[in-house]
Amino acid sequence: MSTVPNTYANAVDMAAHQREISIAEFFLKNRHLLGFDSPSKALVTAVKEAVDNALDACEEAGILPELMVQVAHWNDNFRVIVEDNGPGIVPEQIARIFGKLLYGSKFHKLSQSRGQQGMGISAAGMYGQLTAGTPMKIISRVAGEPKAMQMRVSIDTSRNRPDMHRKHEVEWERPHGTRIEIEMEGHYQTGPHSVPMYLKLTAIANPHVSITYCDPYHASTRLERSIEQLPPLPREIKPHPHGVELGRLIQMLSDTHCRSLQTFLEEEFSRVGRNTAIRIIKSAGRGLSRRSLPKRIAHAQASALHRAIQRTPISSPRTDCLVPIGEAQLLEGLRKELEADFYTVLTRPPAVYRGNPFQVEIGLAYAQAGGLALELEADGHIHRREHKSSAVEAGVRADEPVHLLRFANRVPLLYQQSACAITKAAIQVNWRNYGLQQPKGALPLGPMVVLVHVASVWVPYTSESKEAIAAYDEIIKEIHLGLQACGRRLAHYLAHEKHLRREYEHRQRIGSYLPHIGGALQEILGLSDEEREATEQRLDEAIIEHRHI
Amino acid sequence: MSTVPNTYANAVDMAAHQREISIAEFFLKNRHLLGFDSPSKALVTAVKEAVDNALDACEEAGILPELMVQVAHWNDNFRVIVEDNGPGIVPEQIARIFGKLLYGSKFHKLSQSRGQQGMGISAAGMYGQLTAGTPMKIISRVAGEPKAMQMRVSIDTSRNRPDMHRKHEVEWERPHGTRIEIEMEGHYQTGPHSVPMYLKLTAIANPHVSITYCDPYHASTRLERSIEQLPPLPREIKPHPHGVELGRLIQMLSDTHCRSLQTFLEEEFSRVGRNTAIRIIKSAGRGLSRRSLPKRIAHAQASALHRAIQRTPISSPRTDCLVPIGEAQLLEGLRKELEADFYTVLTRPPAVYRGNPFQVEIGLAYAQAGGLALELEADGHIHRREHKSSAVEAGVRADEPVHLLRFANRVPLLYQQSACAITKAAIQVNWRNYGLQQPKGALPLGPMVVLVHVASVWVPYTSESKEAIAAYDEIIKEIHLGLQACGRRLAHYLAHEKHLRREYEHRQRIGSYLPHIGGALQEILGLSDEEREATEQRLDEAIIEHRHI
Repeated sequence: MSTVPNTYANAVDMAAHQREISIAEFFLKNRHLLGFDSPSKALVTAVKEAVDNALDACEEAGILPELMVQVAHWNDNFRVIVEDNGPGIVPEQIARIFGKLLYGSKFHKLSQSRGQQGMGISAAGMYGQLTAGTPMKIISRVAGEPKAMQMRVSIDTSRNRPDMHRKHEVEWERPHGTRIEIEMEGHYQTGPHSVPMYLKLTAIANPHVSITYCDPYHASTRLERSIEQLPPLPREIKPHPHGVELGRLIQMLSDTHCRSLQTFLEEEFSRVGRNTAIRIIKSAGRGLSRRSLPKRIAHAQASALHRAIQRTPISSPRTDCLVPIGEAQLLEGLRKELEADFYTVLTRPPAVYRGNPFQVEIGLAYAQAGGLALELEADGHIHRREHKSSAVEAGVRADEPVHLLRFANRVPLLYQQSACAITKAAIQVNWRNYGLQQPKGALPLGPMVVLVHVASVWVPYTSESKEAIAAYDEIIKEIHLGLQACGRRLAHYLAHEKHLRREYEHRQRIGSYLPHIGGALQEILGLSDEEREATEQRLDEAIIEHRHI
Repeated sequence: MSTVPNTYANAVDMAAHQREISIAEFFLKNRHLLGFDSPSKALVTAVKEAVDNALDACEEAGILPELMVQVAHWNDNFRVIVEDNGPGIVPEQIARIFGKLLYGSKFHKLSQSRGQQGMGISAAGMYGQLTAGTPMKIISRVAGEPKAMQMRVSIDTSRNRPDMHRKHEVEWERPHGTRIEIEMEGHYQTGPHSVPMYLKLTAIANPHVSITYCDPYHASTRLERSIEQLPPLPREIKPHPHGVELGRLIQMLSDTHCRSLQTFLEEEFSRVGRNTAIRIIKSAGRGLSRRSLPKRIAHAQASALHRAIQRTPISSPRTDCLVPIGEAQLLEGLRKELEADFYTVLTRPPAVYRGNPFQVEIGLAYAQAGGLALELEADGHIHRREHKSSAVEAGVRADEPVHLLRFANRVPLLYQQSACAITKAAIQVNWRNYGLQQPKGALPLGPMVVLVHVASVWVPYTSESKEAIAAYDEIIKEIHLGLQACGRRLAHYLAHEKHLRREYEHRQRIGSYLPHIGGALQEILGLSDEEREATEQRLDEAIIEHRHI
């Protein structure tokens, strides 16, 4: 049995132990940072990473996404399969995309997309490799190619490099698309933190997507798209000058291929036109001119330039780079997936944090306790409307906290709720003002689903697993304002509903006397049965007419 | 003004945008992952990373740590200075340690230390470089060298490589040690999330450390060590076989320099002796023998070996690798820094998560509301004891949530409280059983400080900023058990205190009659003033004697 000697070290001993750490080794040891901390979560995370990539690729290529997701038992483990009708991946890129952490197309640009780190799917493969000991299998076909390419990819974790095995061409029925298969240790479950829930929520936020899902018991579910149109393609933007720190400016000056300071300012930033560029350069002074060569600008000059940028008024970042779900589609998604009595949705105007545009959307779905709600009809009658159960499958009860559904760039966030800016904002809102109970420092109670979507060109997640949004003040504030606006609508509904309920009970009471009155009138006035019924009917209508709701 | 064309892409277009992402770029863009999301937090994080490194180095070298920490205004920014009396750093290593992310000595071993990623201090330097535009300055002297080495180090973020500037030898009064200076954007504050609070809490968990702190207003604070002895040096351990996944086993088999399977099992794992190794190999079958060459073991054989390891009983991981603070020292630390009426501390026995040993320690300090407490003295009298204020500076009030102090490997955790396993465990405990109020799903209310320390050879943090511990079930369970045990002691104290208070009030009431009784007796029996006083005194004592507390 090996024991390690235990003595004090000097500087030279310590130096001997200093080593480089590969990013893959780092995340292998810290796999909870990537969402692979438990077997049940690992399954969900793997599906999520593959689905996110598939949807991004389809949308970028202008293809309506059609996905097949399968989780199957395989030996003692599971096999996760995700197949899309996307544009496919050129064979030379496959190994690096799936077998190298921090490799991708989305990191170096500012654009709203699901993936942004170039890490998720490789991490899923690495987890499979770690727990099942087998490499990921990939089939991909680029449109126009006669055959598909199939290969197995693993990660050499100590060097963060892909290893490719058994690469060969295969026949494949799809004209284009990608299919991945990962074998991994897993634990299959249903409920709020599960693959089916992830897919269901994905459908709410992505009504243009169709997904066929096969679970480990060979049951198949079809989530059908309700919209035959892709959302607009998000536009890529350049950084906004006010969000750029001094060090980044220095880096940009040294990296640019622009040959003059003026072009540099106009080309590398958003919202800087000719006049603004000239104004900044003049304000900076320090011998800087429109023609200064960016690479030759000294530290003190860059510093002056940075200060000049900060004090020059520049229009807010352009926000057409953001593609929210939209109020109509959000409402459609909520209605389709959640049965409730009251719905309201809101898309806030875009805002900015650290120079990055973002936008918040809110949806509320409220279901009367006990699954009973009242409806005022056009003719003035109040009807009791029964619906199957509560607002979501998971079950929301009157004395339980509301059910919070969090989304970032149309991706459902299932874990780390308490660490998320969305939760923090929802807790900060005073829901008592809107007729709900709310324990101190907690979510409000009630049979309600609160949906919050944050769209941004760069979502600041609290960890690489992208499970929660970091609590930037500007983001919290926007969510807060959105929730308040929806809260006020809820309060209005609840007040109305209360009034309706009182009226309904009142009418029920009066109504119970009507037959007696009718009978008495029949006796006194000698009415026929039809006359008596007509009289009762008229009395009923008179009551409704005289009571204002 | 640059706009980016917005058209659909095919597989070849997409491939053209695929790029490698440098880990430094990644964290620069995601700097909130490293704890640099706001200027006020950045200051605290920078100090924390530097102090953690300094303490680790001193302890590893067997030196009682003596630190100087300074936060000073500098132009529009701040300068953070941390100086230690550690062993110093050999000049060849300085640039990489401070100018490269994922470089260090602690990642590749299992040993209890503050640092583990090789990332923190380089990240602090990178943040300085980003916001103030200047590289980090380092002075370091190895014991025995005639002079110290001074240099400035920056990070080439696009390649994650250090750039060294102005390296030269300097005179330095310290015989050995390291001093770093980072200029950075910052916002200085006091309170629960501040540099002084971080240092104060560090002193509680590290009573062997002395720190001199100079704040930006040139006020100096001295935190003096209360123990002149270093804690024992934590022992490095090998991984436990039951915590090793199949993929890791395959990797270890291919990396080892052992020439036989039996030696491999004995050398590379903890708790595997000759007999256990033979038992595992026999159980695995598949043609494996004691002499099988590890590098030649096929996938199916490795898989059989992995299953054999799982079904072979192997002693739990050795736990002498853990060095808890210890009950006596923890109590000492609490008493020194927090004034309270009731203290209790507990060190749990070591436990294991994912093969990694860890250990939980708990401390409670309870202060009576209003700063008033009762004490039963040896002579039976009850005294009202006034103390300055509440249990911590930050102020704990009777109707506020308890104040939670979280530590991991002796490092205070100041941020992301709600995401932390410690908080989750504290919320799970039913504190109503112990006499405190507790809202549903929240921390209990009361004038109390709850300290929780988790020590481990590998602390699973929720992000690279190491602000919260990931919620592994085994860790939550241990904290839960520790809190329950301390909660029971608190309940006992509170019950006693309640009884004491009732008795005190009762006696106050009786006592108020004594002078009247004395006066009446004096009149009836014709007592002198001395006799009357003596009688009153005897009556008072008789009351105390007859009342049991």
